[in-house]
Amino acid sequence: MLSVCGEKQQVVLLFLIEIILIVLIGTLTTYGPEANANLLKNLKEDYNGNNEHNRKPQSDSLRIYPMYQDVHVMIWIGFGYLMTFLKRYGQSAIGLTFLISAVLVQVALICEGVLHFDKNNKAYLSLSSLLSADVAVAAPLISMGALLGKTTYMQLVFMGIVELIVYTINKYINEHHLMAVDAGDSMYVHAFGAYFGLAVSFVFGRKDKPKEHHLEGPSYQSDIFAMIGTVFLWLFWPSFNSASLDGDSQQRAIINTLLSISGSCVIAFATSALISKDNKFNMVHVQNSTLAGGVAIGTAAGMMCKPIGALIIGSLAGLLSVLGYKYLTPFIQKRLRIHDTCGVHNLHGMPGVLAGIFGAIMAALATQNSYDYSLYEIFPARAPNFEKLTSEMRNDYGILPGNDRTALEQAGYQILALTVTLLMASISGVITGLILRTSVCGSVAEEDKFDDAVHWELEEEEEEEGLHEISKIKERNSRANDQLPMGTI
Amino acid sequence: MLSVCGEKQQVVLLFLIEIILIVLIGTLTTYGPEANANLLKNLKEDYNGNNEHNRKPQSDSLRIYPMYQDVHVMIWIGFGYLMTFLKRYGQSAIGLTFLISAVLVQVALICEGVLHFDKNNKAYLSLSSLLSADVAVAAPLISMGALLGKTTYMQLVFMGIVELIVYTINKYINEHHLMAVDAGDSMYVHAFGAYFGLAVSFVFGRKDKPKEHHLEGPSYQSDIFAMIGTVFLWLFWPSFNSASLDGDSQQRAIINTLLSISGSCVIAFATSALISKDNKFNMVHVQNSTLAGGVAIGTAAGMMCKPIGALIIGSLAGLLSVLGYKYLTPFIQKRLRIHDTCGVHNLHGMPGVLAGIFGAIMAALATQNSYDYSLYEIFPARAPNFEKLTSEMRNDYGILPGNDRTALEQAGYQILALTVTLLMASISGVITGLILRTSVCGSVAEEDKFDDAVHWELEEEEEEEGLHEISKIKERNSRANDQLPMGTI
Amino acid sequence: MLSVCGEKQQVVLLFLIEIILIVLIGTLTTYGPEANANLLKNLKEDYNGNNEHNRKPQSDSLRIYPMYQDVHVMIWIGFGYLMTFLKRYGQSAIGLTFLISAVLVQVALICEGVLHFDKNNKAYLSLSSLLSADVAVAAPLISMGALLGKTTYMQLVFMGIVELIVYTINKYINEHHLMAVDAGDSMYVHAFGAYFGLAVSFVFGRKDKPKEHHLEGPSYQSDIFAMIGTVFLWLFWPSFNSASLDGDSQQRAIINTLLSISGSCVIAFATSALISKDNKFNMVHVQNSTLAGGVAIGTAAGMMCKPIGALIIGSLAGLLSVLGYKYLTPFIQKRLRIHDTCGVHNLHGMPGVLAGIFGAIMAALATQNSYDYSLYEIFPARAPNFEKLTSEMRNDYGILPGNDRTALEQAGYQILALTVTLLMASISGVITGLILRTSVCGSVAEEDKFDDAVHWELEEEEEEEGLHEISKIKERNSRANDQLPMGTI
Repeated sequence: MLSVCGEKQQVVLLFLIEIILIVLIGTLTTYGPEANANLLKNLKEDYNGNNEHNRKPQSDSLRIYPMYQDVHVMIWIGFGYLMTFLKRYGQSAIGLTFLISAVLVQVALICEGVLHFDKNNKAYLSLSSLLSADVAVAAPLISMGALLGKTTYMQLVFMGIVELIVYTINKYINEHHLMAVDAGDSMYVHAFGAYFGLAVSFVFGRKDKPKEHHLEGPSYQSDIFAMIGTVFLWLFWPSFNSASLDGDSQQRAIINTLLSISGSCVIAFATSALISKDNKFNMVHVQNSTLAGGVAIGTAAGMMCKPIGALIIGSLAGLLSVLGYKYLTPFIQKRLRIHDTCGVHNLHGMPGVLAGIFGAIMAALATQNSYDYSLYEIFPARAPNFEKLTSEMRNDYGILPGNDRTALEQAGYQILALTVTLLMASISGVITGLILRTSVCGSVAEEDKFDDAVHWELEEEEEEEGLHEISKIKERNSRANDQLPMGTI
Repeated sequence: MLSVCGEKQQVVLLFLIEIILIVLIGTLTTYGPEANANLLKNLKEDYNGNNEHNRKPQSDSLRIYPMYQDVHVMIWIGFGYLMTFLKRYGQSAIGLTFLISAVLVQVALICEGVLHFDKNNKAYLSLSSLLSADVAVAAPLISMGALLGKTTYMQLVFMGIVELIVYTINKYINEHHLMAVDAGDSMYVHAFGAYFGLAVSFVFGRKDKPKEHHLEGPSYQSDIFAMIGTVFLWLFWPSFNSASLDGDSQQRAIINTLLSISGSCVIAFATSALISKDNKFNMVHVQNSTLAGGVAIGTAAGMMCKPIGALIIGSLAGLLSVLGYKYLTPFIQKRLRIHDTCGVHNLHGMPGVLAGIFGAIMAALATQNSYDYSLYEIFPARAPNFEKLTSEMRNDYGILPGNDRTALEQAGYQILALTVTLLMASISGVITGLILRTSVCGSVAEEDKFDDAVHWELEEEEEEEGLHEISKIKERNSRANDQLPMGTI
Repeated sequence: MLSVCGEKQQVVLLFLIEIILIVLIGTLTTYGPEANANLLKNLKEDYNGNNEHNRKPQSDSLRIYPMYQDVHVMIWIGFGYLMTFLKRYGQSAIGLTFLISAVLVQVALICEGVLHFDKNNKAYLSLSSLLSADVAVAAPLISMGALLGKTTYMQLVFMGIVELIVYTINKYINEHHLMAVDAGDSMYVHAFGAYFGLAVSFVFGRKDKPKEHHLEGPSYQSDIFAMIGTVFLWLFWPSFNSASLDGDSQQRAIINTLLSISGSCVIAFATSALISKDNKFNMVHVQNSTLAGGVAIGTAAGMMCKPIGALIIGSLAGLLSVLGYKYLTPFIQKRLRIHDTCGVHNLHGMPGVLAGIFGAIMAALATQNSYDYSLYEIFPARAPNFEKLTSEMRNDYGILPGNDRTALEQAGYQILALTVTLLMASISGVITGLILRTSVCGSVAEEDKFDDAVHWELEEEEEEEGLHEISKIKERNSRANDQLPMGTI
């Protein structure tokens, strides 16, 4: 089964990791102001809330909660069930997503927190830090999609921890230093997660050439389970792309994402039928490429891309994604020895790059004419610098001094952020892959791939009873046949 | 497989439709004011939002979002999984719902938009237009329920586009000219969708008499998949019926719908057991009739029907619906040759008519005594006309001048709206059916009905391997038997 | 099949129960003020809502709605699918959860209402009463988990009605007389529901010793269905624990629950692998024990337990729960003859008791230092009494006079509430079990246990066709064999 690092050691390691997480969260984090009982302000506000006049919207701190829960469902149900499409790896798909995400959401809270220490060297926990953590967890789940069925759970946990650290650094550099915009995290989460996972898979493929495996395919039922994941992801994608925004940007991100993902859904179906035998639909395309529009609009979700822009980029992503499944994935597997179980390159990789490029184009086209002062809210680096900022902008609209960037400069920084992301993902992915190959976290033998039996105590089953029945018949049969000669002699 | 219009042409048509949708949405729509970056008002409000005093509830524009997402889940997960009950049509049920709805939500945005052009001949996209579009899409999905397993995807797309156009006209006439109330769209969506679909099926039945088909039934697993759809529909129905309302009407619609749909659930179970062999429950009834109360309360959801009214109408709907499945559906199929795969007549048709009648009765009973001035908010046509409207009503309560209708007049208009809806649905359904029968969108042969193989590239499966195994045994067996005579001779 | 009380009588009883519920809800309840059209205040507020200045947050009354829908999903989808893990009881699991909950939510509205009559002897229906009813329904569903597969539906309905009455009394005593705190209802719902169900099972076991049953186990597919329930419960648990709170307590409850349930998820996986053969995961543990942290933090969810406290209590609960499945459940079944189908003792029983103890410890540690005046909001009984209450506390922070309790006194009352709950549950459970054993609600014979065929009209199936096929082969085979001797003679 698993070599070098025994199963027992993996279990001990898992306990150890949780203990370390408890200690780190315990020492590094504290309740944010909104969740702190020890702030009289909170109590006073609640009380004023009962006062007819001068009433404050209590719900304001909960504004984000329904969107947070949508994202929550996307991570655990969406990604989890999406990966149940393999005929004999459904329990691992949903079970390991559950485990990995529960570990990594804690890791993400710490990573996120370390960047935002308050004066007491404590990070605040709040609804928005929980949301950020959920979003971050999507990146290692995407990488997991490339490796599905080929790793131990401890390899995934280890990979996820490393990935989240690099993810946090990459996002911080791009957001705070390059001041690049990526509302729906299409570059930082989707492209990053995909190329990180593919880099790991590339390293694995150097050792063992990817082969055909009899369990690497769906069953009729598993395809229907996988659609639970697909459809929940599709439905809640507007929440994913808009949760970190507010005001008119948020409304726009919801509308843009719905249009884009609708476009990709229709075009993915159409392209699937176009390139398939007898013009039928292919479940792999429908489960994945229909979502590409959600990724592709992500970076520009809050921008003024106009309805037609959203529809076109989504449709392009759907087209590109299906073509990727049909032509690019087999090529990459054969030539580069990169095996990609779920085809994350087609759902997250290419559409993520597309999103980055589209975001840069939109940034290049953004003028004060079409955005008015909101331009400086969406692209803070484009705001006038301290000297040029008028007092009207400051006082009436709350605009902070920026870097005085032109539209083309901003576009350049967007492309730079995309490049940085791709480099960080690939390099750190290769390094992670090399570590994972050393079997410190165990490994799965070729014959055990894509098989739930590696991770789960499976019960004897009716189905197997059926086969058992068949084999009993066979036996009787062969005994009958055996008796024949004897009888006939 | 498909005749006249080949599969290839259908694919080309699907691409073409999406391109037309992109052009139309691109030219006809624009971001609504709340989603427009170019309105300084939005920015200013956001900024004031950070100001302790004089703070405005930013969340107000998001108020509708959680309900929108509930409805979103109902359309794609609810209707999609509800229709997976057939043993060999689950992939088509969920897959075609996905495709059809993604096409039609764009069509609905256009239809809806055309009615609400601003001065620049542009329709505003906003959360409420997205919500209206989702609600509209329910109508063709209901029609699809009557035709499930018997059409090509292009027949469904074509039908849906025609249906949405007629739906929009019908709703506009009834809401704006007849000023009939239908908060949960039980007449405009449920009754309309059901009778439209049944009319199409009627036309189909003229050509080919509905026959028994060996694939037209559930499997043990498919019934459990279908319950995902049922339960999500049941849970989020209060959102469906109340999303377009606000204030106390909305609260009332939530409460009324919960009571009504709980009543229909219990009575549907009880009736199912009452009329079944050995008093057992029947999955078809449980999957569908339990929801009838959500439909039946729809029209009157925002009215003062009192808790007991809501419970009674829901219970009646549950009873009627199960009896419909048992006695009416076979009768209609045999005598009128109307085949109704999901029994939409029992879940949407009759309960929708019941809703219309109940709404009229509630309207007839509505007095200023029980509603006070809210009467004119709920039934705007009952408000006093311009001369009679007091300045108190206008200034303090924002009541606009109406048509001075009496309660009975309003009830009459409610019945008129129901009648108009049924006529529009039936006539346009028949015409649509006649067009579909010409095979411009392809057609499904009798032997291919209810079979996923028509639309999907299906993989070889373990199950089939099992059967393969069996057939091999059979073969060995028969050879053994064949050898017997030889051996015994 | 069912003895004494025939199936027919059960159906009639179900109709009767719904009629009684309609009459009781009709006479005892009315719309709450927020849902009453006849309050001019509502109309005026709505209108002012359109006024730029002096705007009131309309959404305030909807603040609870998204959380209510989360809890709604937990009850019907969460509990329903969680119980589909048995290989041949999936339709009953989801179907009976559906029926039972629809009956009991109405019962709970009445029970809840009776305690809160207004001056006209009417109970108000509102979003918060709907939420309370949903929460209450969780208790009998937990009891149902202990009895799954061994009862008629009418036994469950009867048990649920009795249980909800005792539940209401118990919660009222503990909340209003003992003034114990239990934000997430871990004592009042989880511990109560578990020990009530176990007491019923204990009485059943006195009559018939629990035996091994060939249907009492999962299938590969049913385990994946069950995970739908598990994951939705896991995701929405923060809503369950925080929905009844507001302000900073609510934020804290969300954060604490997320941390606690993440800890229990990871530790449950680790413990499962630690104690299993070959260090593999066990689906029963993953489906249930991962959730134990949500229960264990419930009582103290709104308290200042600090992130580390939440993580530790969750991890402990995960550990305890898996050990319970492995060692305690078989012991209890063998020695005490308490059969516990879903292992509710491990998911709700022990973690519920743990929650009560943890809540008491947190109450003992609560000082004005760490909570400031919020202490008296969270523990109202600790507030100074009328004479000692300063006017600042009253006027500026809205604190009401309390019982002047010390921290240790409050802790004592917390333990008292836990004790009262366990006693009420056990005693009323035993009595209910004795009544149920008399077969007034029917009973399920040993050979029919865990079998959907008891409750459902099952269709002939392909699978069965497969077995049919096999048996035909067998027959041919045996005839071949029979012929052998003849042939060979």
